[in-house]
Amino acid sequence: MASTDAPEIVVRRLPLYLRALTRLAEANHLITSSQELGAMLGISSAQIRKDLSYFGEFGKQGMGYEVPYLRDQLRRILQVDRHWEMVLVGAGDLGHAIANHAGFDRWGYQVVAVFDNDPHKVGQVMGGLTIRDVAELEETIRSLRVRIGIVAVPAAGAQAVAERMVLAGIRAILNYAPISLNLPPEVRVHAIDPVVGLQSMSYYLDLE
Amino acid sequence: MASTDAPEIVVRRLPLYLRALTRLAEANHLITSSQELGAMLGISSAQIRKDLSYFGEFGKQGMGYEVPYLRDQLRRILQVDRHWEMVLVGAGDLGHAIANHAGFDRWGYQVVAVFDNDPHKVGQVMGGLTIRDVAELEETIRSLRVRIGIVAVPAAGAQAVAERMVLAGIRAILNYAPISLNLPPEVRVHAIDPVVGLQSMSYYLDLE
Repeated sequence: MASTDAPEIVVRRLPLYLRALTRLAEANHLITSSQELGAMLGISSAQIRKDLSYFGEFGKQGMGYEVPYLRDQLRRILQVDRHWEMVLVGAGDLGHAIANHAGFDRWGYQVVAVFDNDPHKVGQVMGGLTIRDVAELEETIRSLRVRIGIVAVPAAGAQAVAERMVLAGIRAILNYAPISLNLPPEVRVHAIDPVVGLQSMSYYLDLE
Repeated sequence: MASTDAPEIVVRRLPLYLRALTRLAEANHLITSSQELGAMLGISSAQIRKDLSYFGEFGKQGMGYEVPYLRDQLRRILQVDRHWEMVLVGAGDLGHAIANHAGFDRWGYQVVAVFDNDPHKVGQVMGGLTIRDVAELEETIRSLRVRIGIVAVPAAGAQAVAERMVLAGIRAILNYAPISLNLPPEVRVHAIDPVVGLQSMSYYLDLE
């Protein structure tokens, strides 16, 4: 559980720092600096130093940061130095792509159950898992004690699915549906929204 | 083209403000404040005022912002008050989901050509478009004068596809492949990376 008063916007940058440090460590790069991390990520060095200062003292003035040490500390702080199980609702094209996403395993995330409300899909195998009837959602979340849910259903069904997840114990939701979920404040929601990314890039495009 | 010196991190927040303002406008909410926007988005009101100040004077001290006016100004600044065409490479499950994404149309983005390197997929129809051979990628980008590309191929092929897009004129890439693309600095890249979202949520989860 969060042990500091770091603002959420700071917490959201930590995975980017972790990603950069992991890349450096894989290249056997042992020492880095807020300047180097900043150049890799497009974030100012002052911002990086301030962000990290919420969580402790990780470097020495003028000496930079030890890459493996800072990486491991960020893994601990983010609680990603463990295995997280997830349930996925929606076994359409998007659900298939998510169930087979190559990036999850590497970072300790695993889809352990997939659900759909289409009787034709229930019982089929997807990403090595048998698709379950969404009627079993709550029971499965409770019995597996899963805390992370992925919503990959059409917009019209997303809010209801998310509410059912939360009532059964889900506390973090990755939302692929193109709507904003309205959930209790203790539930974290991260929206995968390609339009937000497109809009921030359109700003830089030359009009013809 | 970018007309101010706003840092990229500020530009990346503008679509969130636009989204919130659009929601308010749809609810016939005519006046808002940096406090209200901040509460909707989890961003401090001071940050919102500072971000907007890069682009002009949009409100009067103590009077708040006129919702439709600020929304329209942000649409103009972000250059999203027009139609943007995109090419998509990768006609797998993920490509299907992207081609059918309900959020694009509403915001003026349209996939106009889909490519794959699998001869069995070429010629099939996906999202209303006939899948083209990726050998035609450059020619299509040039003839349609498209500036935005979507990479939805496996990690191993992503860098090569992105480089081909850039050589043909693409200047903004939405990257779904789970790797970092290494491209010239004038090309904007937005990565759709569910792991970054999961990691920032894991921070808040209670361990058992």
